[in-house]
Amino acid sequence: MTRVIDLNSDLGESVSASAMGNDESMLGIVSSANIACGFHAGNSHTMLKCCRIAVDNRVQIGAHVSYPDRDGFGRTPMNVEPEDLYDDVLYQLAALAGIAKTVGTSVRYVKPHGALYNRIVTDNAQADAVARAVRDFHPELPILGLANSAIGTASAAHGLRFVREAFTDRAYRSDGTLVPRSEPGAVVTNVEEVRARAVLIATEGAVIASDGGRIDLEVDSLCVHGDTPDAVTMAGAVRTALGEAHVHIEAFG
Amino acid sequence: MTRVIDLNSDLGESVSASAMGNDESMLGIVSSANIACGFHAGNSHTMLKCCRIAVDNRVQIGAHVSYPDRDGFGRTPMNVEPEDLYDDVLYQLAALAGIAKTVGTSVRYVKPHGALYNRIVTDNAQADAVARAVRDFHPELPILGLANSAIGTASAAHGLRFVREAFTDRAYRSDGTLVPRSEPGAVVTNVEEVRARAVLIATEGAVIASDGGRIDLEVDSLCVHGDTPDAVTMAGAVRTALGEAHVHIEAFG
Amino acid sequence: MTRVIDLNSDLGESVSASAMGNDESMLGIVSSANIACGFHAGNSHTMLKCCRIAVDNRVQIGAHVSYPDRDGFGRTPMNVEPEDLYDDVLYQLAALAGIAKTVGTSVRYVKPHGALYNRIVTDNAQADAVARAVRDFHPELPILGLANSAIGTASAAHGLRFVREAFTDRAYRSDGTLVPRSEPGAVVTNVEEVRARAVLIATEGAVIASDGGRIDLEVDSLCVHGDTPDAVTMAGAVRTALGEAHVHIEAFG
Amino acid sequence: MTRVIDLNSDLGESVSASAMGNDESMLGIVSSANIACGFHAGNSHTMLKCCRIAVDNRVQIGAHVSYPDRDGFGRTPMNVEPEDLYDDVLYQLAALAGIAKTVGTSVRYVKPHGALYNRIVTDNAQADAVARAVRDFHPELPILGLANSAIGTASAAHGLRFVREAFTDRAYRSDGTLVPRSEPGAVVTNVEEVRARAVLIATEGAVIASDGGRIDLEVDSLCVHGDTPDAVTMAGAVRTALGEAHVHIEAFG
Repeated sequence: MTRVIDLNSDLGESVSASAMGNDESMLGIVSSANIACGFHAGNSHTMLKCCRIAVDNRVQIGAHVSYPDRDGFGRTPMNVEPEDLYDDVLYQLAALAGIAKTVGTSVRYVKPHGALYNRIVTDNAQADAVARAVRDFHPELPILGLANSAIGTASAAHGLRFVREAFTDRAYRSDGTLVPRSEPGAVVTNVEEVRARAVLIATEGAVIASDGGRIDLEVDSLCVHGDTPDAVTMAGAVRTALGEAHVHIEAFG
Repeated sequence: MTRVIDLNSDLGESVSASAMGNDESMLGIVSSANIACGFHAGNSHTMLKCCRIAVDNRVQIGAHVSYPDRDGFGRTPMNVEPEDLYDDVLYQLAALAGIAKTVGTSVRYVKPHGALYNRIVTDNAQADAVARAVRDFHPELPILGLANSAIGTASAAHGLRFVREAFTDRAYRSDGTLVPRSEPGAVVTNVEEVRARAVLIATEGAVIASDGGRIDLEVDSLCVHGDTPDAVTMAGAVRTALGEAHVHIEAFG
Repeated sequence: MTRVIDLNSDLGESVSASAMGNDESMLGIVSSANIACGFHAGNSHTMLKCCRIAVDNRVQIGAHVSYPDRDGFGRTPMNVEPEDLYDDVLYQLAALAGIAKTVGTSVRYVKPHGALYNRIVTDNAQADAVARAVRDFHPELPILGLANSAIGTASAAHGLRFVREAFTDRAYRSDGTLVPRSEPGAVVTNVEEVRARAVLIATEGAVIASDGGRIDLEVDSLCVHGDTPDAVTMAGAVRTALGEAHVHIEAFG
Repeated sequence: MTRVIDLNSDLGESVSASAMGNDESMLGIVSSANIACGFHAGNSHTMLKCCRIAVDNRVQIGAHVSYPDRDGFGRTPMNVEPEDLYDDVLYQLAALAGIAKTVGTSVRYVKPHGALYNRIVTDNAQADAVARAVRDFHPELPILGLANSAIGTASAAHGLRFVREAFTDRAYRSDGTLVPRSEPGAVVTNVEEVRARAVLIATEGAVIASDGGRIDLEVDSLCVHGDTPDAVTMAGAVRTALGEAHVHIEAFG
């Protein structure tokens, strides 16, 4: 039996379309591209360029929506009113959708970014606002996020499909939550270890938690980071390892 | 015979949705609202609020697209590359279109703002970029701009309808171009004079130029300003005068 | 005996220097101008123009520093890291100080804006970051804020003078805190009532709280709002009332 | 006799302080750091971090001022009014100066960026505005720019020292101007060639132009790029080559 999983990465976060860093290489590795929409990074130029390369590489496009926070790269926790968050998600999603259309494709999903991503793991009001904005824009669009989270519940409540993701290079606690970045060991940097974790998640739906125990982690997509100097090497190693384990990389679309 | 003309105004340029100035009053007077899309002014919140009030008032919505120039309120002439301009027009138009959709309406036209508006009166390359962005987003959308301009030609070249507008409070030269704002008498501030000019344009397709001569000025829409302290009074006076002259105000849609 | 009090107002929040709304009129009424520094509103042009008019009117200038939140007009509560807040306060304060210097004046105080203002009433870590940024820029600069607040304590801890303010048009609870804007009666709109409250605070250091009781409210400055349509009328009425009560308006400088 | 020259590079252009790319390495190589001030790239956090590392490395700090153009990374030619340009230069310079002060150093020069840099090679009005802003902020600050340019003349006219720079990796025409980036051969990518050019400029004040002829190019500083993947390697090679040629790297201070 062939296993199938999606590989996604955050792209289009460069300061200009002429300096897109690892984006072109990453778009040759992943199956889903989370494209920054101008609120934490990116602009119309990086968005269009990413969309074009994604089409060339048959990579599906997602709107990587954020709080309006270029100053903090979208990583600042913000107590925005749900109605204001609704507006901002809608604006970003709509902008990327219009750009994607002109290159013959369309936005296939929405993935919240940074502080917003973390907030809607538990904040029902903000999660609901995100889900409503997506539903009002297009009720067929899935939301990509952390398994067992408020945004998963809110997506279901508004009739949206929720796509669960795991991180190949992040440590998990025994309760299935991520070890915060502020704690030691939160990020796994050893390539072999990242490869092994990716394969275990993809083939057995499990991960070894930080206390050494094995926990279930059934997901639809694996997130590989695109913004570190060795991101391409790491993502390529994950892809190769999955191939060797007979896991097929395919967009969840 | 009843004459019909459209009244348009630039709206949604406030710093926040909770301080929208004259916008609500203006939306009770005009038939077309040019809504700022975040590049010279406005944000997702002002955009959604304007769209809602426009729907309530049966006013049609246009995307008021600009150079990316919040610092200069979109009034700084910019030698952007046509491809970059294309991206930015597309982004703004798409964002507003997505927002408009959620309140049950849609963007019905595109009007360039400020320095971009002036530039594409004569700049063929930039005019072409604007027209291509609009066509690629939606080939049925008309562009609203100055009669006898490069953007009019570019619109036609790309199969787009071009809607001609005149300004009720701006002086015209004998060749049909606007007297620049830097020259004395460029802006007509007397209410009676503005009323008379509006009626002459709407009923006879003519205007008295700055040299005293009468010139043809056939247009589809009259622009009334929304950003001066007495904007509502002036716009209301124009609407009343047109009514008294048996000119019906109706969106060009 | 002549009483003396300062009148301050938030200014320079317009979208462009050519549409500064009530700012010019307000600068003829107040003694201290809180000038927006580009993070919630304003830009280099509104800042310089405000500084020039302030000098002409012998009004002292304060830096109205904010979270980086143009999208939300600085009203979005943000859990910024203290170090990041330090950087942003410093940037804004320094920018305005440089601009003020070129018109022959200098920044005389710092007043936090909006959500930041409210946050540092109780948040010690953010209050400390603001006070450190001000101290590191110039240890002689006072901070203007709400009496009995964390920012007052932090100012003292870093050797800064703290200037207490009261709002002439906001209701107070019996414990001296403001009635939140979300509650009915939070904002006093009746001119006579605002006049009376201003005089009571300035002459007797007291205010009638929302439960009808009289509480002490010793302050150094009264804040009058500059962003409502009738702001100039209201501020002028307060100034007149204070004059009639033999209270002299003077910058706390 | 020991020759002395300055090495400068554009830094602090990252999207966040936690992803500063090559900046730390470059600050170990150059003697002058042109720090982005938030108008084309950077923010208060990248600015402060760059200043701190610069101090640690005894690298002098310059304000890398730009048109307000994050969308185009400061590369969009803009016909800003000289007065508006004055305001924006002043704002950026003041902001960086305030930040530098808190880490115990000060801004030592101003270098215009991108489209502004190119514009003031020939545009006297914009060059004059830049020079006036610098003079009004601090009359002792030199401006760093292209030799034989309008900004050199304007600097002198306002009593400012002008520091001439050359590019180690850019081709020159026989008249001493740069070959535009749009032409083939504009950028020299071969390390050995870049090394040789750097040494020739530093030791003999000359460069081999694109037509093969040798021209005079007396400068005070060499610009090495910091934003390409191999920037650190290239800059290190230039530094080593200069050392081998007995050229001492020293800030022009």
